[in-house]
Amino acid sequence: MKTWRDECGVVGVWNCPEAAKLTYLGLYAIQHRGQESSGIVSLDRGQHHVIKALGLVAEVFDEKNLANLPGDAAIGHVRYSTTGVNSLSNAQPMAAQLFNGPLAVAHNGNIVNAGEIKQKLQTEGAIFQGSSDTEVILHLIARCPSPDLIHCVRQTLEGLDGAFSLVFLSHDRLIAARDPYGFRPLVLGKMRGTKPGDRDGYVIASESCSFDLLGAEYLREIQPGEIFWVDGDGEHSLFLDRKTSQARCVFEHVYFSRPDSVVFGQSVYAVRKRAGAILARQDSTPADIVVPVPDSGVPAAIGYSHASGIPFELGIIRNHYIGRTFIEPQQNIRDFGVRIKLNPQASILRDQRVVIIDDSLVRGTTSRKIIGLIRAAGAKEVHLRIAAPPTVGSCYYGVDTPQVSQLIASHQELNEICRYVEADSLQYLTIDGLREAVSGISETESNRKSMNESGYCMACFDRRYPTSLYGLDSEKKEV
Amino acid sequence: MKTWRDECGVVGVWNCPEAAKLTYLGLYAIQHRGQESSGIVSLDRGQHHVIKALGLVAEVFDEKNLANLPGDAAIGHVRYSTTGVNSLSNAQPMAAQLFNGPLAVAHNGNIVNAGEIKQKLQTEGAIFQGSSDTEVILHLIARCPSPDLIHCVRQTLEGLDGAFSLVFLSHDRLIAARDPYGFRPLVLGKMRGTKPGDRDGYVIASESCSFDLLGAEYLREIQPGEIFWVDGDGEHSLFLDRKTSQARCVFEHVYFSRPDSVVFGQSVYAVRKRAGAILARQDSTPADIVVPVPDSGVPAAIGYSHASGIPFELGIIRNHYIGRTFIEPQQNIRDFGVRIKLNPQASILRDQRVVIIDDSLVRGTTSRKIIGLIRAAGAKEVHLRIAAPPTVGSCYYGVDTPQVSQLIASHQELNEICRYVEADSLQYLTIDGLREAVSGISETESNRKSMNESGYCMACFDRRYPTSLYGLDSEKKEV
Amino acid sequence: MKTWRDECGVVGVWNCPEAAKLTYLGLYAIQHRGQESSGIVSLDRGQHHVIKALGLVAEVFDEKNLANLPGDAAIGHVRYSTTGVNSLSNAQPMAAQLFNGPLAVAHNGNIVNAGEIKQKLQTEGAIFQGSSDTEVILHLIARCPSPDLIHCVRQTLEGLDGAFSLVFLSHDRLIAARDPYGFRPLVLGKMRGTKPGDRDGYVIASESCSFDLLGAEYLREIQPGEIFWVDGDGEHSLFLDRKTSQARCVFEHVYFSRPDSVVFGQSVYAVRKRAGAILARQDSTPADIVVPVPDSGVPAAIGYSHASGIPFELGIIRNHYIGRTFIEPQQNIRDFGVRIKLNPQASILRDQRVVIIDDSLVRGTTSRKIIGLIRAAGAKEVHLRIAAPPTVGSCYYGVDTPQVSQLIASHQELNEICRYVEADSLQYLTIDGLREAVSGISETESNRKSMNESGYCMACFDRRYPTSLYGLDSEKKEV
Amino acid sequence: MKTWRDECGVVGVWNCPEAAKLTYLGLYAIQHRGQESSGIVSLDRGQHHVIKALGLVAEVFDEKNLANLPGDAAIGHVRYSTTGVNSLSNAQPMAAQLFNGPLAVAHNGNIVNAGEIKQKLQTEGAIFQGSSDTEVILHLIARCPSPDLIHCVRQTLEGLDGAFSLVFLSHDRLIAARDPYGFRPLVLGKMRGTKPGDRDGYVIASESCSFDLLGAEYLREIQPGEIFWVDGDGEHSLFLDRKTSQARCVFEHVYFSRPDSVVFGQSVYAVRKRAGAILARQDSTPADIVVPVPDSGVPAAIGYSHASGIPFELGIIRNHYIGRTFIEPQQNIRDFGVRIKLNPQASILRDQRVVIIDDSLVRGTTSRKIIGLIRAAGAKEVHLRIAAPPTVGSCYYGVDTPQVSQLIASHQELNEICRYVEADSLQYLTIDGLREAVSGISETESNRKSMNESGYCMACFDRRYPTSLYGLDSEKKEV
Repeated sequence: MKTWRDECGVVGVWNCPEAAKLTYLGLYAIQHRGQESSGIVSLDRGQHHVIKALGLVAEVFDEKNLANLPGDAAIGHVRYSTTGVNSLSNAQPMAAQLFNGPLAVAHNGNIVNAGEIKQKLQTEGAIFQGSSDTEVILHLIARCPSPDLIHCVRQTLEGLDGAFSLVFLSHDRLIAARDPYGFRPLVLGKMRGTKPGDRDGYVIASESCSFDLLGAEYLREIQPGEIFWVDGDGEHSLFLDRKTSQARCVFEHVYFSRPDSVVFGQSVYAVRKRAGAILARQDSTPADIVVPVPDSGVPAAIGYSHASGIPFELGIIRNHYIGRTFIEPQQNIRDFGVRIKLNPQASILRDQRVVIIDDSLVRGTTSRKIIGLIRAAGAKEVHLRIAAPPTVGSCYYGVDTPQVSQLIASHQELNEICRYVEADSLQYLTIDGLREAVSGISETESNRKSMNESGYCMACFDRRYPTSLYGLDSEKKEV
Repeated sequence: MKTWRDECGVVGVWNCPEAAKLTYLGLYAIQHRGQESSGIVSLDRGQHHVIKALGLVAEVFDEKNLANLPGDAAIGHVRYSTTGVNSLSNAQPMAAQLFNGPLAVAHNGNIVNAGEIKQKLQTEGAIFQGSSDTEVILHLIARCPSPDLIHCVRQTLEGLDGAFSLVFLSHDRLIAARDPYGFRPLVLGKMRGTKPGDRDGYVIASESCSFDLLGAEYLREIQPGEIFWVDGDGEHSLFLDRKTSQARCVFEHVYFSRPDSVVFGQSVYAVRKRAGAILARQDSTPADIVVPVPDSGVPAAIGYSHASGIPFELGIIRNHYIGRTFIEPQQNIRDFGVRIKLNPQASILRDQRVVIIDDSLVRGTTSRKIIGLIRAAGAKEVHLRIAAPPTVGSCYYGVDTPQVSQLIASHQELNEICRYVEADSLQYLTIDGLREAVSGISETESNRKSMNESGYCMACFDRRYPTSLYGLDSEKKEV
Repeated sequence: MKTWRDECGVVGVWNCPEAAKLTYLGLYAIQHRGQESSGIVSLDRGQHHVIKALGLVAEVFDEKNLANLPGDAAIGHVRYSTTGVNSLSNAQPMAAQLFNGPLAVAHNGNIVNAGEIKQKLQTEGAIFQGSSDTEVILHLIARCPSPDLIHCVRQTLEGLDGAFSLVFLSHDRLIAARDPYGFRPLVLGKMRGTKPGDRDGYVIASESCSFDLLGAEYLREIQPGEIFWVDGDGEHSLFLDRKTSQARCVFEHVYFSRPDSVVFGQSVYAVRKRAGAILARQDSTPADIVVPVPDSGVPAAIGYSHASGIPFELGIIRNHYIGRTFIEPQQNIRDFGVRIKLNPQASILRDQRVVIIDDSLVRGTTSRKIIGLIRAAGAKEVHLRIAAPPTVGSCYYGVDTPQVSQLIASHQELNEICRYVEADSLQYLTIDGLREAVSGISETESNRKSMNESGYCMACFDRRYPTSLYGLDSEKKEV
Repeated sequence: MKTWRDECGVVGVWNCPEAAKLTYLGLYAIQHRGQESSGIVSLDRGQHHVIKALGLVAEVFDEKNLANLPGDAAIGHVRYSTTGVNSLSNAQPMAAQLFNGPLAVAHNGNIVNAGEIKQKLQTEGAIFQGSSDTEVILHLIARCPSPDLIHCVRQTLEGLDGAFSLVFLSHDRLIAARDPYGFRPLVLGKMRGTKPGDRDGYVIASESCSFDLLGAEYLREIQPGEIFWVDGDGEHSLFLDRKTSQARCVFEHVYFSRPDSVVFGQSVYAVRKRAGAILARQDSTPADIVVPVPDSGVPAAIGYSHASGIPFELGIIRNHYIGRTFIEPQQNIRDFGVRIKLNPQASILRDQRVVIIDDSLVRGTTSRKIIGLIRAAGAKEVHLRIAAPPTVGSCYYGVDTPQVSQLIASHQELNEICRYVEADSLQYLTIDGLREAVSGISETESNRKSMNESGYCMACFDRRYPTSLYGLDSEKKEV
């Protein structure tokens, strides 16, 4: 239902037996970051092995084809793709033969100056197989005359503007890198050697929940601007020259990341719970129960309930057998699209004054339907609370967002939105409230630092973009 | 993970356009009741159309084959099957050509005297295609010399002992029937005609959540011992002669049914929440947070939290992308089977005294692993609370249960079980507490009526079986 | 393209390791006899194991599911089915639990009095799952009160009229049986034991080409009216009481059977070659080349060429990559349906007087298109010769035929048909010629015995049906 | 079975409605040229649409995905690929975004100097996604600074040595090109406009049999060294500067091409028949029947029969239901691999002196098995005749061949080979005989011109390679 979605997740594994299988599990844990294509490149005796296809991780990979991905290092990628037949040519990791050997890369983010670089490369005779800006990175590295791969990666990344959390696999090392803004998350973990004397393995992932599934230990974030690599000599790190304020994507906490992940050093669950508590603090509406829109609204609803003392109830049950296509009868079943996923419970909602908590409100159409079903289930009052500020801006940093005109808050006032979704009242978290939620520090304590000082990009809420947009804003197409 | 599972779910639709599609949706909502095979029989101009196959509802059916199920009446079935290649021959609905025309039946339950009836029928030359006791029902009806189908159904059902919630589809009517004990649920709903002047349609389902998805109105339960049917003349009802105390399956409330269903006239969510509250009332263990084992433990944990005042936290996150097979690395990932489904959150659990709420405890192996992961996440104390009594008996009424020797509570004392699962303390709901939870009436008020008076079968908790077992208890095989 | 097709093929294997795999190979060799569903039942330690599904043998079976068919005895079946969703319930072998144990049966043929038997059985309470007359056989056997299976099979078969070549598998024996007319073929072969001291195995099949693939030795036909069985004591045989003239299906030689099979004691290839030679003997049309419609017309064309001295040329090439559905452009490609299968070669046909040999001519539509393509390839003259007499009657003995009104020869004279197919001349084999071809004995020698004396059913060519039709002829529906 | 196989086939369509469907049909007709992957690129309003996947044409494409290939121009490709998981990255057509727009290419052949060009390109920063030399072509064109695509194609092709029959699709034209040697075939046809006033369409294909299926008219070969293109202004042609003797692949006539194709201006069927006739002329062995190894030996056997007067018989029947994998029993079925495809007929072969005609003899292993089966079928004598000279050299021009050591004739004398295959006698066609067969001119007439003068590459028979091999001969790996 959500029309605001993260575009990718990446995983890297170094010095672990069955690296492809671990990569597969790591991707599985971050499947929510991309459900259209899945891919893994493994490294065995200097050679790359590649499998990528449209589909979920569990659809693309099985025992049989994982056996065709030998070696103890691998990188993987899950991706949303724009629909269309050519999408497989954009599936990642991208693997290529360079002069110095094979190089594969998996990318989460969006390079805002990719267009102009690409045009220059094409003039010089470079071939592009797909439309992804990840190809641009490969081309720039390929054209670097130095035999030192790290040097070439560094030089390439210095010239890129925008969001990139990258894992590279060459014939002899695993490299992870993150743009200086730190837009998208990227974390480093350790797999303890299974037998005494084994060297430890390294794991890189978009979110720490991948480590939990693997039984890996969370070490730290790959830092904004850092190039980190491991090879036969152990681990290494350097930083890009370009310095800038940090601009970590606040929407990772609002919606994208799993609640059980630690992102930008903060528990996502804890941030969301704080957001709910702050919402409650702003709010004095009398109500009988607090009900989340599952699953993303649950932590904020718990926080709201704890802070307000209004009992938490799972008043909307989510159906967990959803496939990706669903057959709707021709006859009208009202709000079928919501109903197939969510079932409000009359036994809880009947005659109640209900506070509904959702993580964010984008176009308003789904909220309107949910509120309709809640009223049909007998609720007396429905008060909608959004654990984020009004979304007013598109994203250019690796997030698939509707165009601005579809964002209801970009052109309607609070009371108009409230009327549209047919709620009895509507409140959003304030930008200050969100800043407090992600930092864990209240505004008073923090002396109301500016957004940039907070270290978060909140452009979708305040339209203050941390980079030049290189004309991308004029190209944003109707979805 | 759960080794205690309901074996089937049924749906019936009468006088609705696109009846097969509605049946498909109805089955989809009760997919949790059977995930091995799915089937639908539709009725069009006196002819039956059948599709059934191994697989989930969304795997077996698509736009294309649903178009091959025309008509405005249909019945459907989801089923767990014993593994094995022959299992398709047991898939339901079972459809046959009788002398008076086609008859199809979908069955949820288990006929305890099916074995002896089958043996008699075979001696008389009856052919059995599968091992299901549903075939026995068809044979008995086929042998009834009367042209009056209702008479034949009645006569057949009078001779059956055990659990049966049935829907039949003949060439001219939809029949629903339930055994006199009322073991398994079966509910009746109404689809309002879409155009003025349209006659209303009828919907039958194992659980009321099917009605919610269809936008149908819940009317009532099919009563224990009732035969209900609709035909061109409207609805009809009669009752079997055999009278008996009701013995509704209490495990439907404990675990099987969806929380958003109304089962045996009670909201499942409400019953579970009451069970959690009663658990809390019995309990004085100091703790910091209450954490459910998701998803089935959530309502009881909410009830426990409300009653105890200890904050509710979603401290274990469930992974929702589980497929049905999963590839495990050869190298050891500790407790992989649990880890792939559940991820305890260190940010919530660390240094906490945790009350963990699960719906039931069968063999203890999964609980032991979950508690291990919770401790690894840093919990200071782990107090396991089970929202049901100790499971000590197998079920013979349409539930797939391990043999008694695998039920840990059948041969171990509370403190032994507590030690085995490595909890700091363990408490179960009492049988009286469960009786109170399902009835909504406290024991004091109810003057401690006996089990039979409560109208529930609790044989899995007290080994008091409401029927003869016809020797089935000696055949119960090792799973 | 052919609208006249055999409905089934059967295989049975006894006392051979990997019996299911051998059955699979045997079915594979007779795949042309039925391409809609495939099934195998194996016997292992007294238990049956069943797999059947819609699809070709190579689609339905693989290493994995064949491993679920253990044991050293098995029977198998390939089948054409009427299209429709319910067809799986008619797939064979049919397997059932009788009082004395499991019994499975695979049937090639058609019981002409099945309808009246079925009606009687239904009145007595028998259940029919599909519409196949094979179920009738199972029911009759099940109702036989004797514990002696062979006795029950015999008694059942004595009461059946029509065409049946059957293989049965019980818990302790393999039975093969053929109706007294001998309509459909059924042959017996031997698999030599692979190790010294091994007992030999038995193989039963519709056609001997199955034996060639297995490396089995052809022994003999199962005789018309014979019941043959093998069990732990070796082989046995008895004959039904009913005596009748033989009426072997002549169309097996004309078209159905593979040319490399020995059917009714005659090489199919040799019969077809003789048919071509006899056609040539009747013919004095001057021509430059003889060209078969591949593949079924090849042997007759070789025979015609040898007898006439006119050179044989493969002037029409058959495309061997045909799948079962094919996508046709919306724009008109003339005669696309034929063109996708057959490609006449201009380099051979240009400016030639061509004799085209086809095995039979049913509706004339395909012949008309082929001749059109041959003319477009530049042929000067096209003389169509059919290696069978005009088809004028439907079949009721296990062959799927169009209704009589679609048989062009049933209502048009030779010259009209010739004009319709746009040939320069048209000749058919005479009935006497066909009798000579199948017997290998010229009419003069044989003193012109009557059809019945020839031992062949030629009802499709002469409308002389060997049995009562029990009203089936009035039910024959438009296809 | 054949271990000598063509590696690719190409199709191009211009100015035809439903171009992708026509391309699909054209590929279908040449499926024998490549059965591992299939791909089509269509052009619609300046944009390319691509679908390619592992599998046969009929497996990869269906109505649904063909609808995603809009436009009235398209190119397609079928390919053998080396086995392995990475093979999809070599699937064709290859499509790329160049500075001037999209360019796609489909290639049949092998560039012998691709390795050294690729190395140079990589040094300059070019990225290679797969191992195919087709990527080299795209890179060279991309690096051409001129805006004139034809100029760039020409300049690129001037620098390539080896075999290339190419079709290109840009945003505004279809280009076909063939190397100056003319190694691989490429033909031009015309689709007549379907409505009056419609412009004619153009079709390019590896073999003319594609035109027959489409109902297109054969116009002529694309000439060796020709670049042909069609655009909005009609058709154009130019020739590469490099002049060389023609070296058309004689194996196209011997085995690769379909018999109903016109290749290098000659009917393949006619060439093979002549080869058979010449073999007969060289031969005076008394025999009773001539039997081809189907299907490729059929035309030569017909030619042999006509020339020798020995009757042609289809003594070996080919099984047409072969899938691509086949399950073999563990127990020994002698010569199973051959038996599953070919069935010698005892009724024809018994007690006969048999001349067996095969198209070529590579390793001898299959011939040995076939002869074994023929003897087991009762043949008295088996005389093997090969309608080609002994194969003694590997191919470097787009043919997948075993390494030289596996070619039996490379190291064994005629009598040794005869003994190995267990024939009573063995004769090959002479090189002169083959030259006569492909030219249609007898050696006497042609004054015994040298190979190069004949215009055919016969390097597999005489090891006289028309180009430098650039070290490829030392790399030829064991298969």
